[in-house]
Amino acid sequence: MDTNLSAAHRLAARKYQRGGILTRSVIGMMPTTCQVRKARVTYDELIRYRDTDCYPFHMPGHKRRLGGMCDPVSFDITEIEGFDNLHHAEGILLEAQDRAAALYGAEETYFLVNGSTCGILSAIGACAPSGKILMSRNSHKAAYHGVFVNRLEAVYLYPEKYTGDAKNGFDLPEEFSGEWNGPVRVEEVRAALQREAEIRAVFLTSPTYDGVTSDVRAIVQTAHEFHVPLIVDAAHGAHFGMHPDFPENALAQGADIVIHSLHKTLPSLTQTALLHVNGDLVDRKKLRKMLDIYQTSSPSYVLMASMDECIRMLQVKGTELFETFARRLRGFWEEMRDLKRLNVFHADDPCKIIISGGRCGLSGMELAGILRETYHIEPEMAAGSYVLALASVGDDEEGFSRLAQALRELDHRMYTEPYESALDSFSICQNEICMTIAEAEMRQQRKARLEDCENHVSGEYIYLYPPGIPLIVPGERMKKELLDQLLAYREKGYSLQGMEDYEMKYLQIIDR
Amino acid sequence: MDTNLSAAHRLAARKYQRGGILTRSVIGMMPTTCQVRKARVTYDELIRYRDTDCYPFHMPGHKRRLGGMCDPVSFDITEIEGFDNLHHAEGILLEAQDRAAALYGAEETYFLVNGSTCGILSAIGACAPSGKILMSRNSHKAAYHGVFVNRLEAVYLYPEKYTGDAKNGFDLPEEFSGEWNGPVRVEEVRAALQREAEIRAVFLTSPTYDGVTSDVRAIVQTAHEFHVPLIVDAAHGAHFGMHPDFPENALAQGADIVIHSLHKTLPSLTQTALLHVNGDLVDRKKLRKMLDIYQTSSPSYVLMASMDECIRMLQVKGTELFETFARRLRGFWEEMRDLKRLNVFHADDPCKIIISGGRCGLSGMELAGILRETYHIEPEMAAGSYVLALASVGDDEEGFSRLAQALRELDHRMYTEPYESALDSFSICQNEICMTIAEAEMRQQRKARLEDCENHVSGEYIYLYPPGIPLIVPGERMKKELLDQLLAYREKGYSLQGMEDYEMKYLQIIDR
Repeated sequence: MDTNLSAAHRLAARKYQRGGILTRSVIGMMPTTCQVRKARVTYDELIRYRDTDCYPFHMPGHKRRLGGMCDPVSFDITEIEGFDNLHHAEGILLEAQDRAAALYGAEETYFLVNGSTCGILSAIGACAPSGKILMSRNSHKAAYHGVFVNRLEAVYLYPEKYTGDAKNGFDLPEEFSGEWNGPVRVEEVRAALQREAEIRAVFLTSPTYDGVTSDVRAIVQTAHEFHVPLIVDAAHGAHFGMHPDFPENALAQGADIVIHSLHKTLPSLTQTALLHVNGDLVDRKKLRKMLDIYQTSSPSYVLMASMDECIRMLQVKGTELFETFARRLRGFWEEMRDLKRLNVFHADDPCKIIISGGRCGLSGMELAGILRETYHIEPEMAAGSYVLALASVGDDEEGFSRLAQALRELDHRMYTEPYESALDSFSICQNEICMTIAEAEMRQQRKARLEDCENHVSGEYIYLYPPGIPLIVPGERMKKELLDQLLAYREKGYSLQGMEDYEMKYLQIIDR
Repeated sequence: MDTNLSAAHRLAARKYQRGGILTRSVIGMMPTTCQVRKARVTYDELIRYRDTDCYPFHMPGHKRRLGGMCDPVSFDITEIEGFDNLHHAEGILLEAQDRAAALYGAEETYFLVNGSTCGILSAIGACAPSGKILMSRNSHKAAYHGVFVNRLEAVYLYPEKYTGDAKNGFDLPEEFSGEWNGPVRVEEVRAALQREAEIRAVFLTSPTYDGVTSDVRAIVQTAHEFHVPLIVDAAHGAHFGMHPDFPENALAQGADIVIHSLHKTLPSLTQTALLHVNGDLVDRKKLRKMLDIYQTSSPSYVLMASMDECIRMLQVKGTELFETFARRLRGFWEEMRDLKRLNVFHADDPCKIIISGGRCGLSGMELAGILRETYHIEPEMAAGSYVLALASVGDDEEGFSRLAQALRELDHRMYTEPYESALDSFSICQNEICMTIAEAEMRQQRKARLEDCENHVSGEYIYLYPPGIPLIVPGERMKKELLDQLLAYREKGYSLQGMEDYEMKYLQIIDR
């Protein structure tokens, strides 16, 4: 039970032993099926994992169930006669992209084989090739990379603290109040546009990784008053608008560019995404040039076929699939109302199931360990005080009933015990910006012990992955509050990424 | 035989009717199997194509035969516990990359899921974040994109004209002499490094798309004398060094960074590539940052598993596979010696089979049409006066014997007839550089009829794809010689890419 166990499981197991929260029989159920062994070749490990009974409450949205294909090697080709060229689409791929555009109500849609990442880079490069960009600070690292590559000055929109105004009928647990990122307010957008000249585009993340949406309709109106396009990173919202139970799609709300990861919440292979464009504020010629830069010139027909299959499935039987999905999801949420100790709730997107064990003294990582090891349920992410589970149209009856049963059982077994500290990966603090990202990247840097970095200017990003939202970006000053938070994450065994030093001992800093 | 036929086939068919080169019975053999029909969904079309008897003498190197996998949906996951993270590799993916490094003799190797494209962008960004880069002018468009993104000034190395000095024992057909790009000479590299200050890196394409290699060993020595790293785009040379019949690998020749497309010549899925690093001239920290920027944060485990399977296959039975392959290939080349009318030859890489029908009055496009429609053999590329067929370790006995038989039969049936003009996609002319690519991209542009563009500065790239090597890049002046060549390509029905106008009527130009 030791060497092969994950850090999370070890932590959780220690806690059980210490606090006696779970009975021996539950600990005895801990399996070896999900564990990874030595001498590992990727494909074999993936097949071995496939053959366990682990149920995915994580991406990709096909859940390894919906939309099967045959051996990819058997139909993987290159741009031969009759099969078009993604970078010069005028045949079969143009038709496929047009079907996607029709489904989403976009004027134009582009297939992305390098994920939403390349869509974000391309959108920023097309809309803000120089000058300033107004962007929500809780954006994915790809947006910061777009700022770097185009040598932009970023003006940030800090999200409000989440107050549970989604009115979804669930109590927002105490540990979330004031700790969780909420929406970006339109007033903030307006104020920034009035204050700062030279803003070439607004970049907004909606929904966020955990399902919080901003008022895209109002923000787009404001941006347009200033003749500036709105780019919405809706990587987590490709399923929006497919059924009344889910929020409205950013395209219907009038955004100029919308980027959807297909694989995150819909049945499509990992690494597939769409970029949609509407209106005349975006230089489409420039956009196509950027897509040509940030995507391989040898795009995978396997990935492209998967996207087209996903769109076809939605066209042909999307209504039926989403009816069934919404019904199951509603049933699941009904069941969750009876829980006494665990807090299970959602923000604006009911697919993003947030499970907090805070009242039972369990951290997100511990809770994820129990779900994984005891119930063979793999969640999407463990943050400080909660676990995020992702439901999608790919889920079957078995998945929902296993998750509901696991949570009911855990709820029943747990004691209520106040959790020591609520650490949330999404808690963005407002750092002082000392220079642009590009400037910071060009500057001489030196490494310093993380503990000694208070008040120093960081030369690196630091983020938790997922979700990949930087807590500090190059050129920002490390304040005490953030440093304490980072040291606490490290202490708890979280993997802080973005630093050159994987041991998380040293940070690259810039002397001014 | 009309509406569904490809342009190439129509051209070829017209020629037969006019010249009566082929007998009626051969024309009667023209199939419908390779043709693409209306109402097309990508996956269905790919499966339909798979089920024809078309044999691929093109990429990917698995040839839809070698290294089959199961349903990709069934094992497509995300970065869950135990499966590492490509952008922060320390487990299963690090081990996989280390195996690849060991196979190729690199200090470090990185998996690329966005093709060689992202490797080229990353290598340039890491080695030349500003200043000048010395690069061979017959580089892939991704290299020019690297110049643009980093706002570099490119100093070009123009390849010598090819003279057939590969001494491969085949006659270099007359139409190639003086028309085909050869190697970059080390003297050119030295002269440029002496002449130009601020060169931060040398970028070399070797082998080229059609198998011409430069003397990497000498060039790397020269670059190192100037303390400058050499990046080799060896996208087409991942199989080099696997058997004595193929040239030496650029890694063994001492290059600092080598980029290999795995899918091009080895059994791996399209869009997969490797980036290898050696020595201490490359800032590896910067390199990792760049890879983080240009690759999706949701890399496909299907693509990564495919790369690892490819490496494992080479480790476990590479010697045996390459022995068989080399024997078949030698046999094929033996047979080719007896041809009388077609010219079939290779440059430095015997996998790149160049078939010229010039002596029979056939253009490359016509020849490709015949191979496709009559023999159900799909070649890699049709250039002005030749066809390129790609052999790989994925080819079976059937493939070689079908190609050899088709070529023998064609050779027998053809009359010798001088071909009117030799147009080669690789013929790079030396254009006057009026401004950097980044400057050109930022400038106001206007569209002009292509015919009227003589002496104007282009705002766009123009290239044939494949191979994707720009004939003109933004900021270069269009001279008459090039314009005539472009108009002739258009006339012949080739697709000139890179221009906003797919009809190839208008070019974006820059008024000075």
